[in-house]
Amino acid sequence: MSRFWSDLAHTLQPYVPGEQPRIPGLVKLNTNESPLGPSPRALEAIRAEAAETLRLYPDPESTALRQTLAAYHGVAPEQVFVGNGSDEVLAHAFAALLKHDAPLLFPDITYSFYPVYCRLFGIAFETVPLDGAMRIRIEDYRRPAGAIILANPNAPTGVALSRAQIETLLEDHPDQPVVIDEAYVDFGAETAIPLVNTHPNLLVVQTLSKSRALAGLRVGYAIGDVGLIDALNRVKNSFNSYPLGRAAQAGAVASIKDETYFQAGRAAIIAGRARLNAGLAVLGFEILPSAANFVFARAPGRDGARLAAELRAQAVLVRRFSTPRIADFLRITVGTDAQTDRLLTALASILAETPAS
Amino acid sequence: MSRFWSDLAHTLQPYVPGEQPRIPGLVKLNTNESPLGPSPRALEAIRAEAAETLRLYPDPESTALRQTLAAYHGVAPEQVFVGNGSDEVLAHAFAALLKHDAPLLFPDITYSFYPVYCRLFGIAFETVPLDGAMRIRIEDYRRPAGAIILANPNAPTGVALSRAQIETLLEDHPDQPVVIDEAYVDFGAETAIPLVNTHPNLLVVQTLSKSRALAGLRVGYAIGDVGLIDALNRVKNSFNSYPLGRAAQAGAVASIKDETYFQAGRAAIIAGRARLNAGLAVLGFEILPSAANFVFARAPGRDGARLAAELRAQAVLVRRFSTPRIADFLRITVGTDAQTDRLLTALASILAETPAS
Repeated sequence: MSRFWSDLAHTLQPYVPGEQPRIPGLVKLNTNESPLGPSPRALEAIRAEAAETLRLYPDPESTALRQTLAAYHGVAPEQVFVGNGSDEVLAHAFAALLKHDAPLLFPDITYSFYPVYCRLFGIAFETVPLDGAMRIRIEDYRRPAGAIILANPNAPTGVALSRAQIETLLEDHPDQPVVIDEAYVDFGAETAIPLVNTHPNLLVVQTLSKSRALAGLRVGYAIGDVGLIDALNRVKNSFNSYPLGRAAQAGAVASIKDETYFQAGRAAIIAGRARLNAGLAVLGFEILPSAANFVFARAPGRDGARLAAELRAQAVLVRRFSTPRIADFLRITVGTDAQTDRLLTALASILAETPAS
Repeated sequence: MSRFWSDLAHTLQPYVPGEQPRIPGLVKLNTNESPLGPSPRALEAIRAEAAETLRLYPDPESTALRQTLAAYHGVAPEQVFVGNGSDEVLAHAFAALLKHDAPLLFPDITYSFYPVYCRLFGIAFETVPLDGAMRIRIEDYRRPAGAIILANPNAPTGVALSRAQIETLLEDHPDQPVVIDEAYVDFGAETAIPLVNTHPNLLVVQTLSKSRALAGLRVGYAIGDVGLIDALNRVKNSFNSYPLGRAAQAGAVASIKDETYFQAGRAAIIAGRARLNAGLAVLGFEILPSAANFVFARAPGRDGARLAAELRAQAVLVRRFSTPRIADFLRITVGTDAQTDRLLTALASILAETPAS
């Protein structure tokens, strides 16, 4: 606290990301990174940018990247907005599109950055409880709303809505902006992007951090009607003209163009998830149906915090949230088969040694 | 305009950066990029990051980079904040430190992003006119103020204040945050960083885009009292946990550590500026005394817009601002000697062909 702070600085409750410790031999399954590397073509493109031309500013409009994303998703370049990771894209969307007189709606259990953005931008919000099976019920959003944001698949549950359910939501709220945060969509859910041309209130946000294995590069994007993209550009150009460096733009273009590598990686993660699910089921875990690159699971009668701490003591890192409703769940990233085996072995030994409460 | 926009999106007046056209053979002297490339060590460090590890998130705290900057500037790592270019650092500073009941003060002629940030964050501001010689007069800031921001050297004039003058300003305003934006300081002005330990209200902002020739990498930073840095971190961690990718962090560390390369580049730009000044003087230009990597000059009796357009027709790009007080000035980046010669030759032919008005 300091007398030099603005009122805003005093009121914030910053987001706490999953830890990024440097422990040798660590099995790091806490931040949903890909166990596979990025496309070799992306790495080559990044390497090529390590040149004298770095003295020059990048293209402030990220033209080539927006054109590449537009062609990939079958939309116009003017329907694409890019940012420094999908967190920055979301931040601009909160400022530009989600602040209205009526409250913003999102689930009680979802990406915990959403309420942080609300405090940053002074946005009134209401949370809508997931149902007993930890699913989003579209019907529960039929109430006064200034705007809606949903993660699909939801985080940290991994549970997905179908595109038909998203379409119902859009038709229920034709006058409200609806943001669908698809950070994990490539692992088995249906993207809502085909709906943007018929629903001017829909903004879909994606990232290259998960299914493209480029968390270290910082590239995310949004796709929607030109009117929504214009609003994001107005905020972006009032904040930072050049959010993506030259290497980020070039690496992202090459990654999006390497479809073969992308599809192989996606399939490998989906297979790895089935393997992780099977192993957890053998250990008696209750597992939510995941369409993401992680699973959300709990061992009946076991304290989640204790389980996470015991795993950490064996150099296996998973993510746990202290929110009461999900306090006993672990969010476990799908790693390599070897990492999954390390996790399952550690869990088996912990469950055998300590009795259930 | 769209019914889905927040009120904020409607009220913004975005910043317009200098254009980044792709014209073959262009002499690009409009965005103050370095004519020299970045340190080869920085390029090597960036190349090394184009690896499998890009699948992992970067260090959200940029620990190694903050330690390197702290050692370089003789402060503690907790006194260093880094961001995605100094524009992002400035944006967070406006939100965290510059919004108070009394107005923010800055010069009438300065970096044109400042009023854009004020509109983004709803900050009341007053501009203080430069004196007749286009200098900032510290005495003119002795009035009610919530906070103060000055660019030193000022942009687009290039005119610098001494450290003693900054110290006077700080002593005049012990209860207000004072931000000194030193994007161009390395080209001949005195940094205020030595004052941060005795002035808890001082935040100094620098960038790697100009004197480090890394505009394409996007790294800027701030140095100040821990209390001020804490406020920046609170806003940053409510906005985007990972603003700097792995390549940006590694490249910046290597650049800061290559002192020999940095000093040689700095000296070359300062020598190039003297050469540019001399050539403009021969052509009869009125030139402000610049401590930056650009000069701000006008040809008496000549229309600035027309001069800039005629240069552009000869594939020489300089920057011009439409603000009435400086409408006839050109802001010309110090390029290579060959670029300066191209500029001077073009100017000579234009001035010879068209009579002064």
